[in-house]
Amino acid sequence: MRESELLQHIYAITSGPTPLVPIPPGDDMAMLLVGEQAILVAVDQVVAGRHVDLQTTPLELVGRKAVTRSLSDVAAMAGHPVALLAAATLPPDFGHDRGTTLFDAMRETADQYACPLVGGDIAIHCDASAPLVCTVTVLARPGPAGAVRRIGARPGDHVFVTGRLGGSLGPDGLGHHLSFEPRIPEALMLAGLLESRLHAMIDISDGLARDASHLATGSGVWIELDTSRIPCNDGLDWRRAIGDGEDYELCFAAAGDVPTSLGGLPVTEIGRVIEAGPGDKPAVVFKAGAEVVDTTALGWEHRS
Amino acid sequence: MRESELLQHIYAITSGPTPLVPIPPGDDMAMLLVGEQAILVAVDQVVAGRHVDLQTTPLELVGRKAVTRSLSDVAAMAGHPVALLAAATLPPDFGHDRGTTLFDAMRETADQYACPLVGGDIAIHCDASAPLVCTVTVLARPGPAGAVRRIGARPGDHVFVTGRLGGSLGPDGLGHHLSFEPRIPEALMLAGLLESRLHAMIDISDGLARDASHLATGSGVWIELDTSRIPCNDGLDWRRAIGDGEDYELCFAAAGDVPTSLGGLPVTEIGRVIEAGPGDKPAVVFKAGAEVVDTTALGWEHRS
Repeated sequence: MRESELLQHIYAITSGPTPLVPIPPGDDMAMLLVGEQAILVAVDQVVAGRHVDLQTTPLELVGRKAVTRSLSDVAAMAGHPVALLAAATLPPDFGHDRGTTLFDAMRETADQYACPLVGGDIAIHCDASAPLVCTVTVLARPGPAGAVRRIGARPGDHVFVTGRLGGSLGPDGLGHHLSFEPRIPEALMLAGLLESRLHAMIDISDGLARDASHLATGSGVWIELDTSRIPCNDGLDWRRAIGDGEDYELCFAAAGDVPTSLGGLPVTEIGRVIEAGPGDKPAVVFKAGAEVVDTTALGWEHRS
Repeated sequence: MRESELLQHIYAITSGPTPLVPIPPGDDMAMLLVGEQAILVAVDQVVAGRHVDLQTTPLELVGRKAVTRSLSDVAAMAGHPVALLAAATLPPDFGHDRGTTLFDAMRETADQYACPLVGGDIAIHCDASAPLVCTVTVLARPGPAGAVRRIGARPGDHVFVTGRLGGSLGPDGLGHHLSFEPRIPEALMLAGLLESRLHAMIDISDGLARDASHLATGSGVWIELDTSRIPCNDGLDWRRAIGDGEDYELCFAAAGDVPTSLGGLPVTEIGRVIEAGPGDKPAVVFKAGAEVVDTTALGWEHRS
């Protein structure tokens, strides 16, 4: 069983856009209308053993990551965070002090991003060896230019990323995947500067290769990326940088001029959007000069 | 570690009511203001081994319960359901078909209550023996009379319950705790009929004794319940009915006349609200005639 296939099933069984759900599940966040107000919502989980290693990761960083992962979804939609809810299922021997450390970290992180923790639930596993599961739901409101989706990239757009990619998981299990900053102010700056020229955006949580392919699939286009332009972290080859996972940077497609930095964070043009030929499946293509690079052996297609 | 103590810590570390969070965590749902719109939110978990037994419970009923538990919180606030999000962490051998069965059941149940599923997340446990964890977040909007809280019961009010109590967990593990109807239409009828005379309400998810004590504590009053009036399911003594758990009926405090049924569902007056004396801790007292019944031996105080 692959998570992504089951998620595809969920998206398929939920209805398409409706007047009350103008953005259905399948984007970084869904959008609802409640009365006149548009609300963005998303849910995300952090599971011990799967997303964090409790042997090496301080609980403060586990709580922080549970919150910042959700806030990165808010950035991807160019939204303003409003509030979040956190639920945890704890192993029976977790202990009250560790439970409070985890929730204190989630609340403090939420407060740092002006996104108050407004709800919580606790359950205790029956099975002594069952792992911590931490679930965060985030609510946001669209920025002044509206929510930015995955589906609007157009032929002729250029494709950009913020920051530098790769190496998010350090050899000690710590590193960028725990300490990253959700790119909320940068996303709002972009939406404010580019307005209707900002056509599509996603946060890079599964690696550039997979997330750029979500942009391509969502928008029904080809995305051609130039391997020599990908901004890699020190010591990393582009092959590592595109599949390494949890960068939590922004990847976006836009028309016209785009600033080369946003409040000090570099913005790099890495490719362009081209029309998918008749019968072509929307996809990401990596090119080194004029050559198409075969990335099928890199393995990132099959990560789940 | 007790779930309730850790939840108390969460409520304590989150701030009290603020202009943007007029109902903070600690009630059945929190309330936010987004723009001009009031939104109610709550999160709840269903954990295999803890809340359901996967050996005896069809997955369709697990999915249904995950959704209806959350909808019962909407009933407790006299709200209208708006949307929900469902996340699940699945055992590695759960299988695609069972995953889709679970999510199909959640989506179908959500649709039955006009509360579309607008977000989902899937994670897979690393550990082969780790149990299913299913987390549902529900969004609602207050009814026309506003959200009904736990904290408004006043001396002189009478106390009521809907339906009949006890015996929710059948000998085969099935029963009312899986098949109950969230009392949303009845709660909205009550709020519409009684308007400002409906002072406080809660849904009975932990048994009448514990949930009535939440009303008493929240409102800073004593609640005196008449054991002879408690509407018990067939063959059950009141002692079982007050501690048996998952009735998902409504318990409320109101002034003046209250209908004896709501769309066919019986409403029973079971007691009254009295002022807590100086130095008295708010509490629930059970009386048989003039006699106070000692319920400390019944054990429900210490269930978690």
